Amino acid sequence: MSGTIVLTLSYDGSGFAGFARQPGLQTVQGRVESALETVFRRPVETTGAGRTDAGVHALGQVMSFSANGNEPEPSALLRSLNALVGGGIVVTGVRLAAAGFSARHSAVAREYRYHLVPGPVPPLFSARHAWWVKATLDVGAMREAAKHLIGEHDFRTFCVTASAEGQRTVRRIERIDITPEVIMGEHTLVVRVVGNAFLHSMVRVIVGSLIEVGRGKRPPGWMAESLRSRDRAAAGQTAPPHGLVLWHVTYPDECWL
Amino acid sequence: MSGTIVLTLSYDGSGFAGFARQPGLQTVQGRVESALETVFRRPVETTGAGRTDAGVHALGQVMSFSANGNEPEPSALLRSLNALVGGGIVVTGVRLAAAGFSARHSAVAREYRYHLVPGPVPPLFSARHAWWVKATLDVGAMREAAKHLIGEHDFRTFCVTASAEGQRTVRRIERIDITPEVIMGEHTLVVRVVGNAFLHSMVRVIVGSLIEVGRGKRPPGWMAESLRSRDRAAAGQTAPPHGLVLWHVTYPDECWL
Repeated sequence: MSGTIVLTLSYDGSGFAGFARQPGLQTVQGRVESALETVFRRPVETTGAGRTDAGVHALGQVMSFSANGNEPEPSALLRSLNALVGGGIVVTGVRLAAAGFSARHSAVAREYRYHLVPGPVPPLFSARHAWWVKATLDVGAMREAAKHLIGEHDFRTFCVTASAEGQRTVRRIERIDITPEVIMGEHTLVVRVVGNAFLHSMVRVIVGSLIEVGRGKRPPGWMAESLRSRDRAAAGQTAPPHGLVLWHVTYPDECWL
Repeated sequence: MSGTIVLTLSYDGSGFAGFARQPGLQTVQGRVESALETVFRRPVETTGAGRTDAGVHALGQVMSFSANGNEPEPSALLRSLNALVGGGIVVTGVRLAAAGFSARHSAVAREYRYHLVPGPVPPLFSARHAWWVKATLDVGAMREAAKHLIGEHDFRTFCVTASAEGQRTVRRIERIDITPEVIMGEHTLVVRVVGNAFLHSMVRVIVGSLIEVGRGKRPPGWMAESLRSRDRAAAGQTAPPHGLVLWHVTYPDECWL
């Protein structure tokens, strides 16, 4: 029985129409599959852990595909893919998993990080991966608001897909940390969200709502009301894609060969 | 008597033919002076703390110019300049100093940081401001080598200007720290060099030489021999500009009004 090859990759989402393959568009999955086709001399169909939107970045996206009986040496495959995949994507790891492993369905947790630069001075080194919020933010109030989202809830309020009807919109958020970090000398506020899985643009709507609270336009308790309403109109704006990074995906240890 | 206006600024060196004004070329000084001319409605001649080369970045470059009796409100000038200066440059601070202050001559220390990403996987988020060194580096040996440069020495070996003849090439290096840092999830080695002043490309030749030691091609004691030789040919290659950042310039506290 043939195993599964698992890639970990980073990408700068700026130049892509999102992760998921789409005919005629520059996508991350399309570029990686094309590199894999060159290496394996056959079409390779991959599964990704998270379908990030256009402009969203990844540090630790995960893709899997069947080895079809051909398991190359991981470090050689890493070098070949990085030589072929082109600018804006870096393959950071190659591992082997048992047959039946799926980057999407085997994942037990996903971590996203959203980078904000608050204040009157725009970011320079972080300009491509941080949202400049021209305001002072009340971090204490944002943390208070975020607490209301922890646990298993119906997150329909925070989903941008119009027809979420009929879809299961219950997800579990394990933690939301809001931490000041100095990145390349620039004062950044990092919103770290860990959960089992996420609805379409869920982290971006959560961040957009936290900003309403951070700016003092809404009290922290408003977040609980928004959640309960199950109505997208009750939440804040969708934060722009370029501040978001799919940071890490967790799998059970026993997956790896 | 009229005071001096002092700007602190960050820039991404990628798009510039260096800091120093040059007719017909995109330079940082040229762009800032043109924004100042718009604000003050007169030509403004500035002095910079460090003449960074093409491709070299800055987090804390400092520029000064005479107020000519017209001292605008600092936060208003900050906003105007950021609205005018265009992409790749961010003015991060505006302060006032006494007449006679010079960003160049009043500086008592300058700190440069060089970012390296060692190993088989290229950097992604740091690609624009870190040098990918496809090797494992012996950080202990690099630290040992760096010790030989601390103190006041004739650094002619580490200067790329051919005709350093007649120039004073004695400088004082206060410290060189070589520290692993995780920046946006990527494992980076940061070489931090603090000194009173630097010769042309001095930090880049020092880093290129430290890499020779880190790769095991030269023993740490070779650095002392190179320094003593006062011969550019005795040092390592000049590290590429995009890994270098003029991080901070220090002035005596009593300069500020």
